[in-house]
Amino acid sequence: MQTREAATASTVGKMKTQLELGEWTEAQKLILTCRMLALESHSESLAGQISMRSTNGTFLTTPMAIGFDEIEARHVIRVDESMQVLEGHGMANPAVRFHFWVYRRRPDVQCIVHTHPPYISALSMTGRPLLVAHMDATPFADDCAFLPEWPGLPIADKEGDIISTALGSKRTILLANHGFLAATSSIEETAYLAVLIERAARNQLIAQATGPVKELDPALAKEAHDFLLLPNVVKASFAMFARRTLRRTGYQLEG
Amino acid sequence: MQTREAATASTVGKMKTQLELGEWTEAQKLILTCRMLALESHSESLAGQISMRSTNGTFLTTPMAIGFDEIEARHVIRVDESMQVLEGHGMANPAVRFHFWVYRRRPDVQCIVHTHPPYISALSMTGRPLLVAHMDATPFADDCAFLPEWPGLPIADKEGDIISTALGSKRTILLANHGFLAATSSIEETAYLAVLIERAARNQLIAQATGPVKELDPALAKEAHDFLLLPNVVKASFAMFARRTLRRTGYQLEG
Amino acid sequence: MQTREAATASTVGKMKTQLELGEWTEAQKLILTCRMLALESHSESLAGQISMRSTNGTFLTTPMAIGFDEIEARHVIRVDESMQVLEGHGMANPAVRFHFWVYRRRPDVQCIVHTHPPYISALSMTGRPLLVAHMDATPFADDCAFLPEWPGLPIADKEGDIISTALGSKRTILLANHGFLAATSSIEETAYLAVLIERAARNQLIAQATGPVKELDPALAKEAHDFLLLPNVVKASFAMFARRTLRRTGYQLEG
Amino acid sequence: MQTREAATASTVGKMKTQLELGEWTEAQKLILTCRMLALESHSESLAGQISMRSTNGTFLTTPMAIGFDEIEARHVIRVDESMQVLEGHGMANPAVRFHFWVYRRRPDVQCIVHTHPPYISALSMTGRPLLVAHMDATPFADDCAFLPEWPGLPIADKEGDIISTALGSKRTILLANHGFLAATSSIEETAYLAVLIERAARNQLIAQATGPVKELDPALAKEAHDFLLLPNVVKASFAMFARRTLRRTGYQLEG
Repeated sequence: MQTREAATASTVGKMKTQLELGEWTEAQKLILTCRMLALESHSESLAGQISMRSTNGTFLTTPMAIGFDEIEARHVIRVDESMQVLEGHGMANPAVRFHFWVYRRRPDVQCIVHTHPPYISALSMTGRPLLVAHMDATPFADDCAFLPEWPGLPIADKEGDIISTALGSKRTILLANHGFLAATSSIEETAYLAVLIERAARNQLIAQATGPVKELDPALAKEAHDFLLLPNVVKASFAMFARRTLRRTGYQLEG
Repeated sequence: MQTREAATASTVGKMKTQLELGEWTEAQKLILTCRMLALESHSESLAGQISMRSTNGTFLTTPMAIGFDEIEARHVIRVDESMQVLEGHGMANPAVRFHFWVYRRRPDVQCIVHTHPPYISALSMTGRPLLVAHMDATPFADDCAFLPEWPGLPIADKEGDIISTALGSKRTILLANHGFLAATSSIEETAYLAVLIERAARNQLIAQATGPVKELDPALAKEAHDFLLLPNVVKASFAMFARRTLRRTGYQLEG
Repeated sequence: MQTREAATASTVGKMKTQLELGEWTEAQKLILTCRMLALESHSESLAGQISMRSTNGTFLTTPMAIGFDEIEARHVIRVDESMQVLEGHGMANPAVRFHFWVYRRRPDVQCIVHTHPPYISALSMTGRPLLVAHMDATPFADDCAFLPEWPGLPIADKEGDIISTALGSKRTILLANHGFLAATSSIEETAYLAVLIERAARNQLIAQATGPVKELDPALAKEAHDFLLLPNVVKASFAMFARRTLRRTGYQLEG
Repeated sequence: MQTREAATASTVGKMKTQLELGEWTEAQKLILTCRMLALESHSESLAGQISMRSTNGTFLTTPMAIGFDEIEARHVIRVDESMQVLEGHGMANPAVRFHFWVYRRRPDVQCIVHTHPPYISALSMTGRPLLVAHMDATPFADDCAFLPEWPGLPIADKEGDIISTALGSKRTILLANHGFLAATSSIEETAYLAVLIERAARNQLIAQATGPVKELDPALAKEAHDFLLLPNVVKASFAMFARRTLRRTGYQLEG
């Protein structure tokens, strides 16, 4: 009888050479993430931002009021912490300011996505947290913070302080009356969690509309959390989502 | 620490020059709005109308039983307050009559949209008003009236009187057992609110199916309302929705 | 002040000459209806049938296990009341048998559609009838019967007797644990009601998931029922749905 | 008056020659099933697998982290019970291990699908079983087992033992906090049940969000179960879904 530990070890070994992980530049990954999230309903209005930290302390992001579904290479902009645009055209979304609060407090974080997709938005209106009641939601097991009060429009420093404090050391946070934040050490992981959290909220709300849901055993959830966040599981998932995005949109990556 | 007031001022300044606002004629904006709303499920049946006031006291609208998703330049018609078609072919929707009641009582209103999209329709059946429980719903904070009784098919003068009275000085109204109306000083703002109100109803209903929702603090909601209705936020959103509409439908604007 | 009676009369007058009603053969209308209903999720599995009575007492229908979304001119078959195929290839759906029970008892009925779209199916599982709580649902006001017990697979004569008895003289019926039937004097009206009933069920269920709904005043509902079933409202709606179907599917009508 | 028995006999007779059942190789059916399930939302993440038993005791499956929506002939792999890839490229999904437990205990089973589509996922979170409250759900009448506890990530032998034991001799099983399994004697039947179970869960959840549902009489449900699982009903349904998949995706079958 093979144990889960042995199966995991065997899987980790095979994943080193047997998965299609894709090869894209940082800017291409940013574009793919924007378009991937647009396909998953993360870009309904001009709310929502993505940022990536570069080694020189500047950040890649996309301009205010350009939809995630229309981002091309020419739209990618580089900004500094004072929101000045160093490269590219347009202005940064004023809400990117609260991203910098997270980057300052979390040196491990290299990429942040914040959006208001439909089910996360609806869940955020209930005053209740995300539950881990499905295997596919285990990446959020003990790893999704909750800010129970909306501090107002998140464009100033106060909201950055509040949100980054509430996030603590976790990968994600549900923001009441607002949306979510994913903040991890790679764009692949941030994009992956952004895709998964909206689906987790959807499944939770559909289930809860019919009655209470049954949460997972925390120890089993933790084990699945760690497996589903294995670097190559994350990268292979990102690559699969990226290929799907390219197929569905017909977009041709530049550069 | 930058305050929200300072962040807003800085954003307003940058938005003057840094946003893509589009350049379209009035008729093109009308067509774009029809097609934008069709993409957002506002045109399921022949119910629903759009009208724009011209400076000479006539109105642009679209013909009865031509779907919002098929409107082209050749469909745009000009009517007077007696519903006579002055330019173009076809007949005005008889329900446009109640638009004129609003235009007479509200000199500030230049464009009205009335439709029955799915979630607004469902909300309208509950006898309960739209709630402001999400940042994205703040454009309706203290700015969405409620008509709690359906007066019958809205084709005669009585319904125009009732609806325009209930609207009062607000931008939008939820009509029980019926739909909504957005009536503002520009087609961009009317279209923007029409898109947002259906999503606000959707999020509210999904959340309320699982229990009560948590409304926003009115002062914070008012502040976000004012920001999200800044003229350039509205115009940039309309332009983003319009570009999306053109991309998704493949429609080529004429003229 | 124009009254609703005067507005209706004026509208009826204009509709005689000002609407685009389309020109299609009976077979083309059958194909358009199949494809229109497929777009509205009425053809998920091989359940569901359409039939039209011809003046010689035979019937047009489509073959078992050909999806509504793939019907072309070559698929249309003619059958008699014993389910023999007189023209075309394939076999009639055995459930068409209960259509004949309706045709025998209702000489006014010329076209029947029976399907199991998602929301009608879900509503049919609740044991509760369709409510008239929205203007767009008024074509079902006092005109939608309810069969509260599922008699079993509807392929034999017993079910035909039960369903046709339950339908009585109404245009539509909700069949518990099953689906609906629309049976009217024209294919346009039957198709129109089939499209509307699924949306009415959708809106009702979304609303009821959050609490009770508020039904319409029966007198006002009756008045709207009669307006929305005016022959030219029905025909113009069918034509709009048909044009939409042709645009969305790219299907080219033959012959 | 024709009885249901006579109608069934007559239908079975006609179905022998009058249905379009398609002609595809085993590998083509595998590809069609993957793509059919992707269209029905069964392939949101890298979770989910399909396997087919070959006469020589090896199995066809698809590689880990290749989405069902992108499967082409070149992706199909052959594995043995130790998860070694005998033909093709990539690695088997580690969760295929639990399929082998089913194949060992159920010599009748030739094809297994396991996925986590949205409504099955949501239902699996409620701790409640699938109900048979609609004619279209009768293929699950007394034929859908329920595993009420999630045993953890299904990649080791223990989970295979638990899941195959819980399945027993039924065709399908709902796995709490997880998903479902369909395991039957043909790929057509497994695919058909996989499509139907997600819709059954959807209809159940939409209905239950508004209150209790009314289950079917077990004897009538059993009769419909047997009819809807008649071999030619299954094959004709698979063929209809396959043609739909080819039309919608534009995919050209190879070889």
